[in-house]
Formats: sequence, structure tokens, C-alpha cells
Amino acid sequence: MDTAQAAINSEANPFQTIAVEQVGGVLHVRLNRPESRNAMSLHMVAELRQALLSAEQSAGQTGAVRVLVLRGEGGHFCSGADLKDMAAARARLMQSPSDAAEAGTGLDPIAQANAAFGELCAAYAQTPLAVVVVLEGTVMGGGFGLACVADVALASTTASFRLPETSLGVVPAQIAPFLVERLGYSQAKRLAVTGGRLDAATALALGLVHSVHAPEAVEAALNQVLVDILACAPNALAATKSLMARARWCAPQDLVHEAARTFSQAAQSPEAMEGMGAFLQKRKPQWALQ
Amino acid sequence: MDTAQAAINSEANPFQTIAVEQVGGVLHVRLNRPESRNAMSLHMVAELRQALLSAEQSAGQTGAVRVLVLRGEGGHFCSGADLKDMAAARARLMQSPSDAAEAGTGLDPIAQANAAFGELCAAYAQTPLAVVVVLEGTVMGGGFGLACVADVALASTTASFRLPETSLGVVPAQIAPFLVERLGYSQAKRLAVTGGRLDAATALALGLVHSVHAPEAVEAALNQVLVDILACAPNALAATKSLMARARWCAPQDLVHEAARTFSQAAQSPEAMEGMGAFLQKRKPQWALQ
Amino acid sequence: MDTAQAAINSEANPFQTIAVEQVGGVLHVRLNRPESRNAMSLHMVAELRQALLSAEQSAGQTGAVRVLVLRGEGGHFCSGADLKDMAAARARLMQSPSDAAEAGTGLDPIAQANAAFGELCAAYAQTPLAVVVVLEGTVMGGGFGLACVADVALASTTASFRLPETSLGVVPAQIAPFLVERLGYSQAKRLAVTGGRLDAATALALGLVHSVHAPEAVEAALNQVLVDILACAPNALAATKSLMARARWCAPQDLVHEAARTFSQAAQSPEAMEGMGAFLQKRKPQWALQ
Repeated sequence: MDTAQAAINSEANPFQTIAVEQVGGVLHVRLNRPESRNAMSLHMVAELRQALLSAEQSAGQTGAVRVLVLRGEGGHFCSGADLKDMAAARARLMQSPSDAAEAGTGLDPIAQANAAFGELCAAYAQTPLAVVVVLEGTVMGGGFGLACVADVALASTTASFRLPETSLGVVPAQIAPFLVERLGYSQAKRLAVTGGRLDAATALALGLVHSVHAPEAVEAALNQVLVDILACAPNALAATKSLMARARWCAPQDLVHEAARTFSQAAQSPEAMEGMGAFLQKRKPQWALQ
Repeated sequence: MDTAQAAINSEANPFQTIAVEQVGGVLHVRLNRPESRNAMSLHMVAELRQALLSAEQSAGQTGAVRVLVLRGEGGHFCSGADLKDMAAARARLMQSPSDAAEAGTGLDPIAQANAAFGELCAAYAQTPLAVVVVLEGTVMGGGFGLACVADVALASTTASFRLPETSLGVVPAQIAPFLVERLGYSQAKRLAVTGGRLDAATALALGLVHSVHAPEAVEAALNQVLVDILACAPNALAATKSLMARARWCAPQDLVHEAARTFSQAAQSPEAMEGMGAFLQKRKPQWALQ
Repeated sequence: MDTAQAAINSEANPFQTIAVEQVGGVLHVRLNRPESRNAMSLHMVAELRQALLSAEQSAGQTGAVRVLVLRGEGGHFCSGADLKDMAAARARLMQSPSDAAEAGTGLDPIAQANAAFGELCAAYAQTPLAVVVVLEGTVMGGGFGLACVADVALASTTASFRLPETSLGVVPAQIAPFLVERLGYSQAKRLAVTGGRLDAATALALGLVHSVHAPEAVEAALNQVLVDILACAPNALAATKSLMARARWCAPQDLVHEAARTFSQAAQSPEAMEGMGAFLQKRKPQWALQ
């Protein structure tokens, strides 16, 4: 990323629980409740979804967001769900237990709050944009889940991971499927059964994170990842992510025709023209200059 | 685990091919045919199923079993199927080939004996209890399969693994699906094609086992794993295992509501009350004191 | 493999883009366009399929092929799709866009060319024979895909891997499902999003390859893998591969009866008679002498 050319978005931050800043095609999103090690309140859940939605809606426009970088303010990533929201949902449930199904989902207030976090994870897991997470300090519960959702996870050596739910008598319910997605069923199950306490090196060995860096080397590593991602054509990257999501549930031989149509469509697109032209002219394609 | 408080079950061992001893919430199960390196006879298959069933039926009662620990007597885990059972099944098949489907399953006597082992593996793989396996010496064939079934697998440096079936002209049939579950399809296939000979360090690198220890350090490692497991509330642990088993076959976004209901149910349970109370009072929850 | 007994196939090589040589039960297949680092032309795709088909048809006959070894001539494995074929397909599409669906598949000429490569990968992924790949030098694009298809992948330290597609504005479409199969969804996605540049050591850490060797040690490593594979009875190996392919999409408990029937069938086969006889007589079975 040529930072000299990067357009810095100087709009006032429109959020309260997160801080966002766009630099070129990259939206830097910081969980911003350092007083609670960035506990994931329902307000933060809503703002993280809004930030993603705005980014997705910018696609194809000048100054579109192509990559989101998630990290935490104050040396920690995220300490998990905010217990105050849980207490409030519990109070709501006590006051009017018969309203449980009122939202039409059949979910009681506690389940609704929990589902909102699950939908956040699913939205980040399914976005056509690239998602990078930078993990430092505490990575617990819901934060552990978000770490599993990102396409690329960088960890500082300061990162420490934990799934405290079962030791409190509750369940890492929305996190569990993403643990399985990230680590495979067998390692996910092992972690859950033993409380999921990991340091950064072990997280790397399991594939929970993709690289580990000394604190002073994290920015350089992040920049290199961003250069690598921005070298990929945005639509081609989105089409690849989409095919891989299909391939998780479908045998390769059953995807041959679908993949061939995806390939042909990409090969006839303006991106392929630009990519091939740049290759022949030994220059970088436009999309790599952000 | 506070061993001083552990209630030692002094009942006579009711089994012939295995030895069981309950210490607190942990049922220690030893394959006990050291003269054959604990070859898995049909009798042993039946007793291992019975031991699990009894443990599962104890759930919720005082002194319930929460964790099973499987290991072998005499420095070996298990050398695979007992060839005598195979010979007997073959003889039965020769005597009355027309009885093949008599059990209503359409399985001939050889297939029936094989299916009994597969059902054993499936029962341990699906139990809501936690299962730990301690692997020493020979871990072959069916023993290799059982190692893949456990939630947590500890290995001694003495452990050596092998899938001898295809070199004898037969198929690691019931084991194959659990190899895929444990290692992923690609590594499982590679092992099967090349005969599956591994030492403990390689087994660790593949995720077949979760840690490797010098023989004199195995007990301490097992105790630590048991402390970690017993710190998890039993129902919460069971609900987490169940959700993860679902997530192996289902995309995270399709599990959001189911996970939310699981979460809410747990959050309103006595376990969650005790867990939160213990957390606020800075004490261990009741379930962690076994 | 007892090379003294190996029958060397001295037929003239019937192919133009690949070179094949049979030694005992092993068919050595070399991608043979070193002037383009073995770029995968449509001609090569067709010849690789033909080589596999002939090998599969030899099954059960004297001198049958049991293992295919794929590698590249000239120090490189494969640089990916041949751009000339792509240009020709594009020209065909320009001349008669209405013929897009003429082949009855609904695929335009670009998609057809792409699908031919996908069908090649699927054929090698699904063969009952064992497939080994030896990776040296450039392993790019389609070559990266083939590396993921093989049952066993050996790499030289000279191997370097890359997925250049998205940086050219196109999609690693047929490769994506095999990346997911080999690496799991999460690592495959990460590689795709960041351009997939790997050295041999990283490829080993990810499980993309199964071992890495100094260039002068590659042949010895390959020979050991072939000895291990040839020690497995051919039909038993094929049945095991088939069961594992089923287990990728099906829970173990749902495969118990199918696995039991597979086991019984194998146990009553001539292979099992020979395997058990050899075991009791402390000799190698016939199939291990090739």
C-alpha cells in the first residue's frame, strides 16, 4: 500500500463503541471500550454490523472499502460479551416471560441478544470483502469467535485466548460453529472440553491465527498482509471466497461447472482486461495502487 | 481435582476384559488383556459399551461420572481387533451362509462383528460425557480408531501408531470415518494409502494426539487435563459438544437460532446461577471441587 | 519395491505433452513441456486423463498400474494454465457468442476449457489408484491444484507455490475446491485472500505437502513412499479410499453398516487370504513384491 497516496478519511467517527478510519481501500475498525477490555456490548454488535454494511455498500464506487481490519483499543482485543446486556435481557425475561416469542423468531430476550452476536459473526464470515483481525492481549469468548471469523488473523505475542463460558455454566454457543470452521471439528471439540486456554504460539500451531509477531513488528506484518490482499482484484477475490464457501459443503466434482462459469465470467470482466494488460506491460494493475 | 476429597469406588470390578475405577467424577477404564497387548475382542467391545452406558445413566445423580479415561494395561494401548473373533465369525459364515441376514440388519457374521466395533466407536464419539485417552506403546487398528474418537488424546513418547489392515488385505473400515473426523480427509487419506505408521511426535504434528509426554510425566499431564475438564459445568460441556457435532455438517449462519436457544437455556439453568455466583464470590463452582 | 524384478515398460511413449514409463506397478508420469515450465495446455489435460484412464483399465490384469507418480520435467512441476489456450477460447467466444451452449453443458468456450481442467482434477481425486506427486520448482495455479489432488505430496526444498489468479483479475476456480479439500476451508480462504505464495517449509506446515526433502534426497523419499503404498493390497486400498471419500460428507455413525459390509467383503476376498497366509508364514504378500 503506497501510504503517500492513501486518502485519509477525516470524517468525524460516527460510532460510539468503535472507531473507524479509512485509508485507501482499507477500513480500520477499532473496538473502543478499553475500560472493559472492549467487552462486546449489544451497542458494539450493532455498530460493527453497520460498519460492515456501509463498507459493503461502497463496493464498486470510487474510494470503496475492500478490506476491514478489526482490532482492539488499549492493548486488548475483546473480553467477550458485556455482562450488563445479559443482566438486562434476563430482567426483561423475568418481567414478561410471555413476550418471549414477540419478535416473531420464537427467541426469548436472552436468546435474542445472543443471536444478534451470532448474526454479526455470520455477516463478517460471509462478506465478499476481505477481513483481517489483529489480536493483542485478551481474546476471550465472543472475541475468540470474531478471531475465528476473519480471513486472516495476525497475533501479537501478547495475545492470550480463552473460552470461559463453560466454567461459568454457560455455552460458547455462537462461537462454537466458527471454532469448528477455523480449527476443524476435532480440535474445536478438544478446546471446548478443556476450557480453551491458549497462548499465541499454540494458537498458531492450531491454525487459529496465521502468524505471530513481537508487539513492535505487528504493524509491519499487517502492512504486508494488506499489500498482498490489495494486489488481488476485488471482484476476483470475492468470487474466490464465494466458491470456497460452497466448497466447504460440496464435493469438488460437483462444483466443476459452477466453477467454470465463475472463471469465464471473471475472464471476460474489466478486471481481467486490466490484469492481463498490466501483466503484459509489466506494471501493477490499478487495484494494487491503493 | 482435589484427590483428598475424591470418593474411591471400591466395588469389585464387574468386568472381565476391562478394569474400571471411579475417582470423583472420573471413571478410569483400562483395557485389561495385556497378554495380547489389549486386543479388542467382542467381549471387550461389549464391556466398553456397558461401561459407557452406566456412566451416562449416572448423569445428574450424586457421584455421577463426568469424564471417562481410556487407557491400556501393561504399557500398550491396544493392538487392534482380536483375530480369534474374526476366525469364529468366518466359521459361522461358512457353516450357514444363508443366515447372513438373520439379525435383520442384512449383515453377515463378519460384518456384524465389525459393526459392533463401529457402534462402540460411535457411542464414545457421541457421548455427552468427556472422553480422554492415554496412549502408550502399541496403538494399532481398532486402537488407532478409538484414539481418534476421544475428545482429548494424550500420548506417551512410547506410543507408536499403525494401520496394518491394508497390508493384510483387509480394510480399516470402521476406523476410516474417525480418521477423517480427527485428521481431516486429506491427511487421513494419505495415512491410509501409506500404511499409517507414525511415532508420537508425528501424531502430535498431525493433530491425531493433542500432547506428548515423557512416560514419567503422563500422569501429571492427565491430572491437569482432568482439572481443566472438571472446571467446566457438565451440562454446559455436553451442550457445547452437541452444538459442535451439529456444526460439523451445518454452516454457522444456519445455526444462529439453535445456538441462541441453547445459550438461553443454559443461561437460565442452575449451573449458570452457580457459575455466576461463584465468579462474583471469587470461589470455585461446586462442579470444580470433585 | 524389488527393482530387480520390476518390469520396465519399453513401449514408445504414446503422448506428446507428457512422458510415461511403467516400472512394476508404478506409472511414472512426467509433465513434459519444460520450455514453458510445463504449462498445462488443453492437450496436456487430455493426455493426463488418458494416462489415468489406461491405468485404471489395467486393474486386475497382470502388470496392472497401482500407483501414478506425477512430476515435471526440467526442475519445475507446473506453471499453471497455458495462456495460449485461453486466448484461443476467447477468440472462439468472440467469433460466435451464440454457440456458447452448443456442447449441451451451457458452458461457453472459456468455461469449457476451464471445466476440462476441473474434470482432470476430479478424475485424479477420485481414482481408486494411489496418486503421488513430486513437487519441484514452480508450482503455480493449476499445478497448485494438482498438488492438492494427490494422495501423497512430496516436495523438494526448491518448490515454491503461488496462486497468481486473483492478481491477474481471474479466479482459481477449479483449484479452490481442492484447496479446501487439502487445507480445510479456513486456511484455503486465507491463502486465496493473500495470493497464496508459499515456500516448501510453509507448505509442509499447512499440510499442503506431506514431506520436504533436499533435492538429492527426493528419489529415496519417493522410493520409500512407493514401498509403503505397494505393501497395501490394491483392492483394500481402493476400498479404503472410497470409504474415506464418503466419510468426508457423512457422520461416522451413519457409515457403520456400509463400513461393515466393506470389511466383510474384503475379509472374504483372495487378497485377505493371501494377506493372512503371508502373515502366518512370515513372508511378504504377493502384492508387495512388485
